[in-house]
Amino acid sequence: MQGLLDMDSLEILVEVLRRGARAIADASRSCALSRMQMLYMSDHASVVSLNLFAALLCGCIVIGHLLEENRWMNESITSLVIGLCTGVVILLTTGLKSSHLLVFSEDLFFIYLLPPIIFNAGFQVKKKQFFQNFSTIILFGAIGTLISCTVISLGVIQFFKKIGLTSLDIGDYIAIGAIFAATDSVCTLQVLNQDETPLLYSLVFGEGVVNDATSVVLFNAIQNFDLNNINHQTALQFTRNFLYLFFASTMLGVLTGLLCAYIIKKLYFARHSTDREVALMILMSYLSYTMAEMFYLSGILTVFFCGIVMSHYTWHNVTESSRVTTKHVFATLSFIAETFIFLYVGMDALDIEKWRFVSNSPGTSIAVSSVLLALVLVGRAAFVFPLSFLANLSRKSSNETISFRQQVIIWWAGLMRGAVSMALAYNKFTSAGHTHLQDNAIMITSTITVVLFSTMVFGLMTKPLIRLLLPHPKHGSRTMLSGSSSPKLLSHPLLGGERDSDSELVLSDFPRPNSLRALLRTPTSTVHYYWRNFDNAFMRPVFGGRGFVPFVPGSPIRSGYEGQ
Amino acid sequence: MQGLLDMDSLEILVEVLRRGARAIADASRSCALSRMQMLYMSDHASVVSLNLFAALLCGCIVIGHLLEENRWMNESITSLVIGLCTGVVILLTTGLKSSHLLVFSEDLFFIYLLPPIIFNAGFQVKKKQFFQNFSTIILFGAIGTLISCTVISLGVIQFFKKIGLTSLDIGDYIAIGAIFAATDSVCTLQVLNQDETPLLYSLVFGEGVVNDATSVVLFNAIQNFDLNNINHQTALQFTRNFLYLFFASTMLGVLTGLLCAYIIKKLYFARHSTDREVALMILMSYLSYTMAEMFYLSGILTVFFCGIVMSHYTWHNVTESSRVTTKHVFATLSFIAETFIFLYVGMDALDIEKWRFVSNSPGTSIAVSSVLLALVLVGRAAFVFPLSFLANLSRKSSNETISFRQQVIIWWAGLMRGAVSMALAYNKFTSAGHTHLQDNAIMITSTITVVLFSTMVFGLMTKPLIRLLLPHPKHGSRTMLSGSSSPKLLSHPLLGGERDSDSELVLSDFPRPNSLRALLRTPTSTVHYYWRNFDNAFMRPVFGGRGFVPFVPGSPIRSGYEGQ
Repeated sequence: MQGLLDMDSLEILVEVLRRGARAIADASRSCALSRMQMLYMSDHASVVSLNLFAALLCGCIVIGHLLEENRWMNESITSLVIGLCTGVVILLTTGLKSSHLLVFSEDLFFIYLLPPIIFNAGFQVKKKQFFQNFSTIILFGAIGTLISCTVISLGVIQFFKKIGLTSLDIGDYIAIGAIFAATDSVCTLQVLNQDETPLLYSLVFGEGVVNDATSVVLFNAIQNFDLNNINHQTALQFTRNFLYLFFASTMLGVLTGLLCAYIIKKLYFARHSTDREVALMILMSYLSYTMAEMFYLSGILTVFFCGIVMSHYTWHNVTESSRVTTKHVFATLSFIAETFIFLYVGMDALDIEKWRFVSNSPGTSIAVSSVLLALVLVGRAAFVFPLSFLANLSRKSSNETISFRQQVIIWWAGLMRGAVSMALAYNKFTSAGHTHLQDNAIMITSTITVVLFSTMVFGLMTKPLIRLLLPHPKHGSRTMLSGSSSPKLLSHPLLGGERDSDSELVLSDFPRPNSLRALLRTPTSTVHYYWRNFDNAFMRPVFGGRGFVPFVPGSPIRSGYEGQ
Repeated sequence: MQGLLDMDSLEILVEVLRRGARAIADASRSCALSRMQMLYMSDHASVVSLNLFAALLCGCIVIGHLLEENRWMNESITSLVIGLCTGVVILLTTGLKSSHLLVFSEDLFFIYLLPPIIFNAGFQVKKKQFFQNFSTIILFGAIGTLISCTVISLGVIQFFKKIGLTSLDIGDYIAIGAIFAATDSVCTLQVLNQDETPLLYSLVFGEGVVNDATSVVLFNAIQNFDLNNINHQTALQFTRNFLYLFFASTMLGVLTGLLCAYIIKKLYFARHSTDREVALMILMSYLSYTMAEMFYLSGILTVFFCGIVMSHYTWHNVTESSRVTTKHVFATLSFIAETFIFLYVGMDALDIEKWRFVSNSPGTSIAVSSVLLALVLVGRAAFVFPLSFLANLSRKSSNETISFRQQVIIWWAGLMRGAVSMALAYNKFTSAGHTHLQDNAIMITSTITVVLFSTMVFGLMTKPLIRLLLPHPKHGSRTMLSGSSSPKLLSHPLLGGERDSDSELVLSDFPRPNSLRALLRTPTSTVHYYWRNFDNAFMRPVFGGRGFVPFVPGSPIRSGYEGQ
């Protein structure tokens, strides 16, 4: 210290001490502690809204848990209602100026909230059920969405002029068709239960996933083709592009999943490391989504198939604690994202600016909302029943066909419109050019009405409807299961698994006679049989998977906790 | 359908079919699919950088895993080097224009990356060790930081004028002192190992946590006091404010943790739900951080104590799978955030704009960096050794005192400066007014140099230094442990636990004789003894905790997997 303080230092020291505190004040305020200042100024508002959101999410979780036994409610409705109530409170406290804390952000939705939900759906999906119904899912997702879009567009053209919305052009009409044609896969997850109604779940949810590819194909097709000369060539190119996009997105997801499985299998031999494995699985699944978006593919399809591959291979290569952790962490992230979306939609519904426009013509708004709801009902009916008939033609045994009652549920469960519709409507009708047109404001408020009404009313009715239409023995287990929460997430990611994974999670990874029995017992299709052979002979030895991970000395549980 | 298509509909239908495709093109492009468009336009860049970041993080994880057995490297250095290499590649591909993908964002750092790291540290900290050294930690964090700040400020005043940096005023000098006085707790986590050197870990890391409160207190104090009249009253008020802030932040964290424990304990009686429990723990810990920031308290202290309380009470109230999941998910999130920070600092280090200024006077830059590094070394020595002497006076038995060799390691391990220093330097020296001043550019590049040098050189030397200075028997276990990865995260969140939690995780929650034995065997202080009694008599029955969670029929593992 002496060495540093020679020469002029004493004078300077005196100077410092005299002006000391003031200087420290300036310095601290402007520099070292300016992160606090920063938080005070520009970021304090965002900290406050983050805080409110975190608190509301906690509230939604607790209240959702308490209301779970309720036969009508589901988590999404709870979140919507809490969001609405918060919106009212904010409206009142801000003096009817604003009801939301954040502007509805499509970025937030498509880049951060949607991927974990879709990935988790792929990770937890019953793969056998999904692939057995693959052709029907494609039929619904590709052809069905087009039919529904056409019906809604035509209906809107028909009725909107009569109601008095004249400023919309034909582009807007078809846009409305496209907005309301797509099933919201996030809502579907909330009302259909994979364990209770596996067939319906895979059909309706699968349709929602394939939907997305249809949209991207439409967009790309429209970009590339000269659409003034429409002929059968165009349709062919359209189909070809759909197939290209579908396979490219799927392959990207599959390859990412396989790469992750391979990396973890190779690293696994050296030492266990739960944290790294979990981090790698989270990051690589997210990577698949961003890669797909980067290459203009369908991120939803990609991340869904990545989830399927990860649950089939990667999940079996990791330590015992990684398995438990990933299973729950993906479910938890998806759960938080879903809750966040519904909370957000609820809060955003009371956007006072738009409702002010509408208050001049409440009749019009009600008429528009009613027409849209009716068209959604009709548009979905227009493809579910004919396409189910087509699908039934290709199904061999009678217990594989989709019964009329099941068709009704497929129709009903896909009626909900959610955050995706909101995001698209905002994007279309609040663009810079004509935000303040009355017709656009009416379209926004009508979309909000349709979303709220369909989620709350159709959503509330789905559980009772299923109970009414499908009181078959399988359904009896529901009362047993109701003790545990959200049974949809109970399923374990095993191909052809008869839910024997409860024990498998605890026991080691040796091949189990069960899977063989299950294979022989279930009516497997030929494709499935050959796939199993190929999987066992080539895929699993390379990428790991159930029964193909070498046994590591020490009980799996201990090794799981040791290697973190 | 017929009903919808009467009247003018046929004409309209013809119109639609004629103009159909073009209209669909417009509509799709402008509306339903505009999310794609959106991703194409404004967001494609952000998708690309997200993608690159995810890929780089995966790379860091894999390479870090492979290099783990290396006796010199640690994860932070690997990430820094990968970030630097990527920066070089980006520099070359963009034609020497830019080296980073995102501008260094303090928001990102303080709102999203720091909380999970600090929370996890609190969640995994050895509580007994931490509380036994509590007074020493406060001494280092509060008094030590002030001493170090003073020494560095004085040194900078002394030397910078000679080097030729004349445009800086006294405020800047003291700012530099504040920037370089604070130990980077994130770096500390990387080099000190909780299991190998528990005393050193709790001292140095605890200092880093308490640091933050010191800063906030300084800021608040300076805001409120009239600093022209400095007297002993001011010092008293200063101390009072520090104590207020320290206790307020701590209490907020403790209360949030207890609330979470209480909620989960109450809900637990109804049914298990792993996903909700995990979501609630994640959200409430984050809530504690945002609440602290909202109330202008120290978020770092709050979230740290929230982590401690959660591991002591909440963690014992949840299902078996929630325990495994939370333990690993917090560690994983913290791990990803740490890797992200170092990767980012590495990429940001090559910010070409600043280096251009410096290239005119390379000598000055080198001199400034050297002076800063020397002052960091001296400033830390100036408080570690005297304060350790003070701390040793209050320690009774000789094996509790901090030996000279340990003091050297405390001094050395706290020398690293990391992302916090970078963030503060950017904030201070790139503010709108004078971004292009040469002296400011030199300060930025010197900070980068100090950060890189201290992290890489001091970081690399820490492991060998510890091996050299502390070859005591406890250290012999290191070779045994090195088979498992990052042993720092092995520790289990148990108060006074003798690491019996490996088995406890698997067995049920009955009170175990072990904990009693441990209590009698270890030299517990009187405070600790009374706390244990109070904890057992009042706290645990209300908030749950080890041995106070009612036994639920069915083995914990089964129930863990059943209730998801």
